[in-house]
Amino acid sequence: MGKRRDTKSRMLETAAELVQRQGYASTGLNQILESSGAPKGSLYFHFPGGKEQLIALALEKSSESLSELLEQVLATAPTPELALEMITGYFGSQLESSQFTKGCPIATVALEQSATSDALHEVCSRTYARWQSAIAARLVREGQTAERAGELASFILSTIEGALLLCRAHRSVEPLRRASTELARTLKGL
Amino acid sequence: MGKRRDTKSRMLETAAELVQRQGYASTGLNQILESSGAPKGSLYFHFPGGKEQLIALALEKSSESLSELLEQVLATAPTPELALEMITGYFGSQLESSQFTKGCPIATVALEQSATSDALHEVCSRTYARWQSAIAARLVREGQTAERAGELASFILSTIEGALLLCRAHRSVEPLRRASTELARTLKGL
Repeated sequence: MGKRRDTKSRMLETAAELVQRQGYASTGLNQILESSGAPKGSLYFHFPGGKEQLIALALEKSSESLSELLEQVLATAPTPELALEMITGYFGSQLESSQFTKGCPIATVALEQSATSDALHEVCSRTYARWQSAIAARLVREGQTAERAGELASFILSTIEGALLLCRAHRSVEPLRRASTELARTLKGL
Repeated sequence: MGKRRDTKSRMLETAAELVQRQGYASTGLNQILESSGAPKGSLYFHFPGGKEQLIALALEKSSESLSELLEQVLATAPTPELALEMITGYFGSQLESSQFTKGCPIATVALEQSATSDALHEVCSRTYARWQSAIAARLVREGQTAERAGELASFILSTIEGALLLCRAHRSVEPLRRASTELARTLKGL
């Protein structure tokens, strides 16, 4: 069992990393097998639903650890502005150290596949909803009503996701720095 | 010459539409030829640089007409808030009428290809810079300094691009509506 679980985990981690860098369509099953060193038979043994199931589970897993990180930062940072500064700083350093190949781990698949694959739409939508809830929870703690906190959290998440996209397009972290500064102003003015 | 130009234009329009819906990697040359009804030989005749060149020119062309529309709305709307409301309203209706397959025409390629293709990075980056300049120009007219207008325009573009992404992920126009309302508040408070 230990070995089987190892193979499965390795395949999921490799798939998540490849998809973050190059998207869903460019990531072939053979590339996942080769990069993870998994035997060919393991694919349909672990993922009878094929590529769609494998990538959905990979995104689920990679977004789980990022969600936990975001939730922890949002819950413990001294102010929400500082939480957003830490989060955008984290994404910025990921972008710079990967030559702008690693932005949001699910955004490329969300754009490529949300309209056509229900399984991938479902995992992307649920993940974004979870991040939005984590931001909203912190704003409620700062005194916002649940409704207003949800609205602001949607706006904040849009700004960060768009900045991550523009950083990749421009190969520069400037849009993310600007997003962080402007969101801090917005939060201070509440 | 007329017929040749027609074939080339048809191929570019078809490619732009396919790429907007499904991204770069999923769009095959055969699909572009079949959907545009172009003869096979026309591909390397018109686009000796192959798929990368064809898609770069297609994005160039499709973003040109969108850029003109955005510039016109930003230049002529009674207030910048109203301009953003018209722009997000336009994108929202495009999303709804296409079952959430048509968001930003260049975002998917920007995420898939910016890090690896210089030609595609260049056209995406230039297009986003042009949209940002159009927003900034309007803010200068409203009395902002050029520097501050540029900063705000970066923030506004990030928010709209992120909202377009979240609309596709959630199959809902709610993030775009929220972005428009919050950006209007920001602009009114300047």
